[in-house]
Amino acid sequence: MCSEKNSPWKWIDGGVGAPQGFQATGTMAEIKYKDKYDVALIYSRVPAQAAGVFTRNKVKAHPLLLTQKHLANSLAQAIVANSGNANACVGEPGDRAAEVMAKIAASELGLKAEDVLVASTGVIGVEMPVERVTQGITKAAQDFGATKGGQSWTAQEKIEHAHQAALAIMTTDTLVKEFACELPCRNGVIHLGGIAKGSGMIHPNMGTMLGFLTTDAKLSAAQLQELLRQSVDVSFNMVTVDGDTSTNDMVLFLANGESGVTPEGEEWAAFQEMVKVFCIRLAKEIARDGEGATKFLEVQVTGAESSEDARRIAKSICGSSLVKTAMFGEDANWGRILCAAGYSEARFDPAKVTIYLGDVQVAKNGKGVNFSEEEAKAVLSQKDIKISLLLEDGEAEATAWGCDLTHEYVTINGDYRT
Amino acid sequence: MCSEKNSPWKWIDGGVGAPQGFQATGTMAEIKYKDKYDVALIYSRVPAQAAGVFTRNKVKAHPLLLTQKHLANSLAQAIVANSGNANACVGEPGDRAAEVMAKIAASELGLKAEDVLVASTGVIGVEMPVERVTQGITKAAQDFGATKGGQSWTAQEKIEHAHQAALAIMTTDTLVKEFACELPCRNGVIHLGGIAKGSGMIHPNMGTMLGFLTTDAKLSAAQLQELLRQSVDVSFNMVTVDGDTSTNDMVLFLANGESGVTPEGEEWAAFQEMVKVFCIRLAKEIARDGEGATKFLEVQVTGAESSEDARRIAKSICGSSLVKTAMFGEDANWGRILCAAGYSEARFDPAKVTIYLGDVQVAKNGKGVNFSEEEAKAVLSQKDIKISLLLEDGEAEATAWGCDLTHEYVTINGDYRT
Repeated sequence: MCSEKNSPWKWIDGGVGAPQGFQATGTMAEIKYKDKYDVALIYSRVPAQAAGVFTRNKVKAHPLLLTQKHLANSLAQAIVANSGNANACVGEPGDRAAEVMAKIAASELGLKAEDVLVASTGVIGVEMPVERVTQGITKAAQDFGATKGGQSWTAQEKIEHAHQAALAIMTTDTLVKEFACELPCRNGVIHLGGIAKGSGMIHPNMGTMLGFLTTDAKLSAAQLQELLRQSVDVSFNMVTVDGDTSTNDMVLFLANGESGVTPEGEEWAAFQEMVKVFCIRLAKEIARDGEGATKFLEVQVTGAESSEDARRIAKSICGSSLVKTAMFGEDANWGRILCAAGYSEARFDPAKVTIYLGDVQVAKNGKGVNFSEEEAKAVLSQKDIKISLLLEDGEAEATAWGCDLTHEYVTINGDYRT
Repeated sequence: MCSEKNSPWKWIDGGVGAPQGFQATGTMAEIKYKDKYDVALIYSRVPAQAAGVFTRNKVKAHPLLLTQKHLANSLAQAIVANSGNANACVGEPGDRAAEVMAKIAASELGLKAEDVLVASTGVIGVEMPVERVTQGITKAAQDFGATKGGQSWTAQEKIEHAHQAALAIMTTDTLVKEFACELPCRNGVIHLGGIAKGSGMIHPNMGTMLGFLTTDAKLSAAQLQELLRQSVDVSFNMVTVDGDTSTNDMVLFLANGESGVTPEGEEWAAFQEMVKVFCIRLAKEIARDGEGATKFLEVQVTGAESSEDARRIAKSICGSSLVKTAMFGEDANWGRILCAAGYSEARFDPAKVTIYLGDVQVAKNGKGVNFSEEEAKAVLSQKDIKISLLLEDGEAEATAWGCDLTHEYVTINGDYRT
């Protein structure tokens, strides 16, 4: 892993377990599949400030509602999550299942249930197999065993266990999404770790997926919540796979202060930047790993009247089925790009739009230019495609990420439940 | 064709040319393909009241802007339309091409250019082959020849020519969308005719497609515009194929008064109802013929707090990629249906939602019920699938139409332009 150009922080190993005082692990509970990690447990040896951002879907999964309740005091010490079952839309038993998950984790870890946050992902409307999931949680807590406090695992074991947690929240994901980084400060080193899952049912409107972040920085609850909100806005909320905003989406952020460092001034600025870059990196991995995707799309809008306008346009293009299929077909159909900008409900002057595919200008002043189909084809045959819109309406900009729409997406989702 | 149950009107032959004083034809101008009708001309022998509803896309095609201008006086006598080229996003030459189309049609038909409405559909961002399209218009006008006024074509020829107009506006459509009906009134018979094209780039927000309606009823411009708006709201605007709102969408309605009948009282009510049913029939054909579709979806929402809430929910479900792929896969994944309702931004109580697939209840009070997978499979294996959501929030209802998302949609749109 290499450090971000000119940045004071650098990427390290260790995923969500990298920050001091945190550990994470995954177990196999056979919730839906055999031989797949499906229960993740993240633990802080001391109470951590906790923040969350949640789906705006009116239909909210049972664990999500419980987690919102448990976040009321902005404190938490563990996150338990499972894949294979969303625990959504099953009524009373769903509420109970989420509560049981929190209670079992709490009891195994010696915490209050209120200090455990719960998340689930998988099929909607099927009751959680409570016995299996609780067995998985117990096994995970036992993994920590004597290591509570992180003392008895070797560094390598710690990394491997955190990796299992990343595996355990995957559904149709094909890429593991875990990163960690560190920021040297005057009084110590701050670490940041995180895992995420995405793949399908991904559309901007916070949530769009599960993401769990940990840091050993010393932050107030208000700082943490604001930092998370800002970071999610430019990262997870700028990813779209299929326009479907899930019932279960959440990003949680725990800060346990174990580094002893309270970032201030320049260090605070660097830390903020690090968290944003971190979230963007996770978000891009989600887009890249969209269900059935063969192409990664980055849509950059510059020169917009406002950030909101830039965001709307970028997301609209990224989410257009017609743009997505054109990218799949490697067809330089820029008209669909402009069309998608047009129905985004953003303010902009269509007559002043310039469009690039990679470095090939395909439209200027809102109309097509003569471009080399060959050069365009060369851009579109890449796995990563950048679409740029240059407006002349102002100074604001935004970037969104997505993927192409493929036969494989249809295959995956035509037969998900059964 | 059979009459609508208990309705005072009945379905007849003749398409958009059925109303008295109208005639329509199509010609082959090789705009994009050989041996395909691609220029349509609709003509009224007397000036007609004219109304239009247009795309809300900020990027508007050149002919659309011209047509809006020509509608300023609410009068028109002809509609000229082509497929194979959208005449959108090509700048100055696009405006000129649209104007030339109107002028040539006007000159051939002995009208003022302002009385000709122009519409185009096809690929965006490619300049219109003006010579070809104008030759096609001239040929179409010559088809009318001595028949201007509709006297010298036999009834059968009139029907065949009108059918050519329906063929000429098709792009990736596989079904011809043309209907006609008549309403006997005390003082004569009112006729209504219409054609439409849809298929791709279809999403509620008026437009969504091209539709041309004609009637020989005597109506004021204001009546006509209001009737069109109301009818489009419950028909064309309730269809979604892929969520992409096109730059070219419009529905035009001409009323030339040639029946001599001004519908009033009960007859006005019956006429209003006929126009709505007519638009819904065209709209459903568009959904049924969605690009690559193998299933026709009807989503009915009842018991909503307001019509707007019902509409949002119905359209959101109809437009969900995950619902659409589940229907393609014949998978009774009702959780995705409830999820799509949840992100529709409509007001409703998720805990009071009942869901039916056909006549199989799959969820009640917002959670799954034990249903027979076999019975559900029987419903989903049909070509026409009805999804019903029963809310308990009020009395309002709405219905939306759409289709499944298939491998074929991806194939068609991965390679449309080239």
